[in-house]
Amino acid sequence: MSHFMNTKEDIVTDAINGAVAASGGALARLDGYPHIRVVLRADWDKSKVALVSGGGSGHEPAHAGFVGRGLLTAAVCGDVFASPSVDAVLAGILAVTGPRGCLLIVKNYTGDRLNFGLAAERARAFGLKVSMVVVDDDIALPDLPQARGVAGTLFVHKIAGALAESGADLDTVADAARRVIAGTHSIGMSLDTCTVPGSPKEHRITAGMAELGLGIHGEAGVEQMPYHNAKQAMAAVADKLSPAMAGPGHVALLNNLGGASVLEMSVLAAELLGSGIGGQIGYLVGPGALMTSLDMRGFSVSVLSLGAEDLALLMAPCDVPAWPGCVRLVTPAVLPLPDGLTPIKAMPAHHAPTQAFLTACCQTLIASEADLNLLDSKSGDGDTGSTLAGAARALLDAMQSLPLADHTQLYRAIAQELSQTMGGSSGVLLAIFFAAAGDASSAGLPMRQALIAGLDRMQQIGGAKPGDRTMIDALKPALDALDAGIGAAASAARRGADHTATLTKAGAGRASYINAEQLAGHTDPGAEAVARLFEHLAARQSVAQPS
Amino acid sequence: MSHFMNTKEDIVTDAINGAVAASGGALARLDGYPHIRVVLRADWDKSKVALVSGGGSGHEPAHAGFVGRGLLTAAVCGDVFASPSVDAVLAGILAVTGPRGCLLIVKNYTGDRLNFGLAAERARAFGLKVSMVVVDDDIALPDLPQARGVAGTLFVHKIAGALAESGADLDTVADAARRVIAGTHSIGMSLDTCTVPGSPKEHRITAGMAELGLGIHGEAGVEQMPYHNAKQAMAAVADKLSPAMAGPGHVALLNNLGGASVLEMSVLAAELLGSGIGGQIGYLVGPGALMTSLDMRGFSVSVLSLGAEDLALLMAPCDVPAWPGCVRLVTPAVLPLPDGLTPIKAMPAHHAPTQAFLTACCQTLIASEADLNLLDSKSGDGDTGSTLAGAARALLDAMQSLPLADHTQLYRAIAQELSQTMGGSSGVLLAIFFAAAGDASSAGLPMRQALIAGLDRMQQIGGAKPGDRTMIDALKPALDALDAGIGAAASAARRGADHTATLTKAGAGRASYINAEQLAGHTDPGAEAVARLFEHLAARQSVAQPS
Repeated sequence: MSHFMNTKEDIVTDAINGAVAASGGALARLDGYPHIRVVLRADWDKSKVALVSGGGSGHEPAHAGFVGRGLLTAAVCGDVFASPSVDAVLAGILAVTGPRGCLLIVKNYTGDRLNFGLAAERARAFGLKVSMVVVDDDIALPDLPQARGVAGTLFVHKIAGALAESGADLDTVADAARRVIAGTHSIGMSLDTCTVPGSPKEHRITAGMAELGLGIHGEAGVEQMPYHNAKQAMAAVADKLSPAMAGPGHVALLNNLGGASVLEMSVLAAELLGSGIGGQIGYLVGPGALMTSLDMRGFSVSVLSLGAEDLALLMAPCDVPAWPGCVRLVTPAVLPLPDGLTPIKAMPAHHAPTQAFLTACCQTLIASEADLNLLDSKSGDGDTGSTLAGAARALLDAMQSLPLADHTQLYRAIAQELSQTMGGSSGVLLAIFFAAAGDASSAGLPMRQALIAGLDRMQQIGGAKPGDRTMIDALKPALDALDAGIGAAASAARRGADHTATLTKAGAGRASYINAEQLAGHTDPGAEAVARLFEHLAARQSVAQPS
Repeated sequence: MSHFMNTKEDIVTDAINGAVAASGGALARLDGYPHIRVVLRADWDKSKVALVSGGGSGHEPAHAGFVGRGLLTAAVCGDVFASPSVDAVLAGILAVTGPRGCLLIVKNYTGDRLNFGLAAERARAFGLKVSMVVVDDDIALPDLPQARGVAGTLFVHKIAGALAESGADLDTVADAARRVIAGTHSIGMSLDTCTVPGSPKEHRITAGMAELGLGIHGEAGVEQMPYHNAKQAMAAVADKLSPAMAGPGHVALLNNLGGASVLEMSVLAAELLGSGIGGQIGYLVGPGALMTSLDMRGFSVSVLSLGAEDLALLMAPCDVPAWPGCVRLVTPAVLPLPDGLTPIKAMPAHHAPTQAFLTACCQTLIASEADLNLLDSKSGDGDTGSTLAGAARALLDAMQSLPLADHTQLYRAIAQELSQTMGGSSGVLLAIFFAAAGDASSAGLPMRQALIAGLDRMQQIGGAKPGDRTMIDALKPALDALDAGIGAAASAARRGADHTATLTKAGAGRASYINAEQLAGHTDPGAEAVARLFEHLAARQSVAQPS
């Protein structure tokens, strides 16, 4: 599996460079590459309690992506899935800690505890006030004496961050962090393992299985189970969380472990709120990629019950794009469908000349069915004749219900009929042609101008131009010539149709995927249909423009 | 490949339910399931120009995720990679269009053009003012007369959205949209195909290859090339975009096609800004998953050159969490490393009794190397003896440079020495022990209290408690008994160490992964080392507490 990186050794520094640059000046970094990789607020003045977090990389946007006003002051980044060194953490602490002190927020992994812990000791030797809290929200392994720290860490960052931003002192911030840690419970599920840059993929989770209670470093989960669907997966997660949730009013954080699509995460959000614990969830953070495990196709849910003050801190605005906000859940608004989706049928109105005209057109198309199919078989799927003949037959059947005496209404009724009975792009395009003609007619334009308005709209929507080997190559010259009579229009249509046989590059429609040799010498079937229509109308001595 | 969904047929409605619920009341939907899937602003009052977009699903957060104040008014969602129907689009238009009219923003795919186009005609027949623009930003296929619409569509949404929100009229908003479309150019690259829910994965891109110029529906790209690294991949993309970029001052949008990790996207951001077109990019949107292709492991770059007014609209705040904002790029701030990373060495100070005491301790540990290794081989990796003996040898070597006459400084110096010479968790934990003892000593606590403070800190950071089968099981009883003399302490340490052989469940460290049968009957090597130290000190008749 390839990754978008340069070398395994450079991936973290390259990513930090990108994150700092993309922040537009909100973030800075310390000049300590390659070993000291610390991202910090560019606007930090040490006037408040500083919040420092971090750990192994591979969990982005955690932690560098959560540096900003109202969240973290600095993030110390290790190699992928490896703790940063004591020196790196110490550099972060020294860079941001002022007289109000500093809180270290550490996920409960031995390496992080030790490196952050020793760095705190060394910082204290400088006389700095440093407190440290350890997040252990993972409930996957109830027998493990030291639960892991996973996505629930974000609750700690946000609440402690908002409190520090408000000017609270270190003890108050640390106490709040400990309160949040004590109340936070998380568990994850995945359909596949993550791929560590530069390492072969571990195929631990076979197709059709899901792993419950896995960590964020590719550690194996507590159990594998057959995976059926999103509802079942979320039910398994909810079952694990439920014993830790007493009463309503919880906030839930729905985290993408990296490789689930945004579409799937929305499905999971619906399932979470509809699950056995859904009724106990009053507030939601996400869904979003917050504490990832590289590209792991999985998710985690963290829950927390908290008081009004901490809730306000969780919901407080902050200057960090990666933080998705926390919303109070309300009953989703489902609005009634608007009127007008069922088109009002115009009143039928008999008009003999128009009926004769329309009937002749339909019969021409029906008679041309086989010829047009044959032509289409050279450049398309051989159904143009049948598509047009089918629409013509439907129009003949509907003749008695059409508003034949009113051109504006007739155009619109034909548009409606075609959009319902004629398949494919051509049906929609002809419906647009007649609907736009109806629009123009209702604005007072005479027939030729109305039809030209229809053609313009059809070109605009369909995107085809004259020369693109479509029906437009016959229809446009015919309409342009119509003022000189139906005979002139028919001649123009024929010339236009014949010309398509010389066009060896189709610009629109299915024929655009066919190469030149296959197209040469064959008339476009749509243009041919238009030419035949006009020729037939011209040949009808008795037919003048219907009026 | 499993997906987090229930059925293929329900995935879009389930996802919309999740997105609407997760919006906390900001979004609503029309009551038209299953065929009419329209997401709209819950607070919309039709007092401004409405913006309607949409298309096939699978591109989330586009388009429902971009509905909100300052962006889209409504999104019409089709099946995965399939256009919504005319009726669905019409429902969206009718639901949000007031007297100021409505702009449809459509990506250039035949199905979308036709369905949105016909819906616009039908809406116009109701007397509504409806304009439509078609986005065709993809430059992958320069010979294709109808370029596709891809992630550059977001520029159109944002600029037209901010303009509409400001109260501009429909023509002004539509003109701005067309201006943005004309100036936007995009191209994508991927290392793998996407997996369509319910369909088998197409293995078109083999390992080690990248595809350039691919669409957002799994369509094949223009070319495949061997993939080397992020720099080369971005250079290929920049080469394609460069001819379309005249001069500086462009804004770039870096889009995750869904399956690239956040870490990789930051690497790509760095490479984009360092690429051949980096100097022409003054503003950046992302990186982020904005217009995805399900879980495609790829990215796209869109570029646009625009005037001050449109730039202000692009940068205007909006109430849409999925919009990552647009930032002005500045020279990244690289701050100097803080002072204090290189610990100040205390002045050497000779003190014979302390030197004798320390030397005896070190010799005891060196003499125990083989025994402790053997014990560790029962529960760990057999190196406890070597680790401790190595640290002892280093301490003996450093003896002449230690501040032996000053306990506070001596604790700190030993901490520093151990953190530099002793590997593994034990080295860091002992460094924490001595650093905290130094801290307590500097605060005036006598030796026993200082050592107990060190033990407390070591327990807090390491997370081990008495009974967890660690050195604490000997060290804590020894320190507790120290007031009664070194003999009492030694006896207590021995009892504690021996007791660890009865503890069949390790609570911390590597031994916690070993089962009970393997542990039974074996003393913990760390506890044994402590017991031997105290026993040896007690046996030294001449040794009193160093003072």
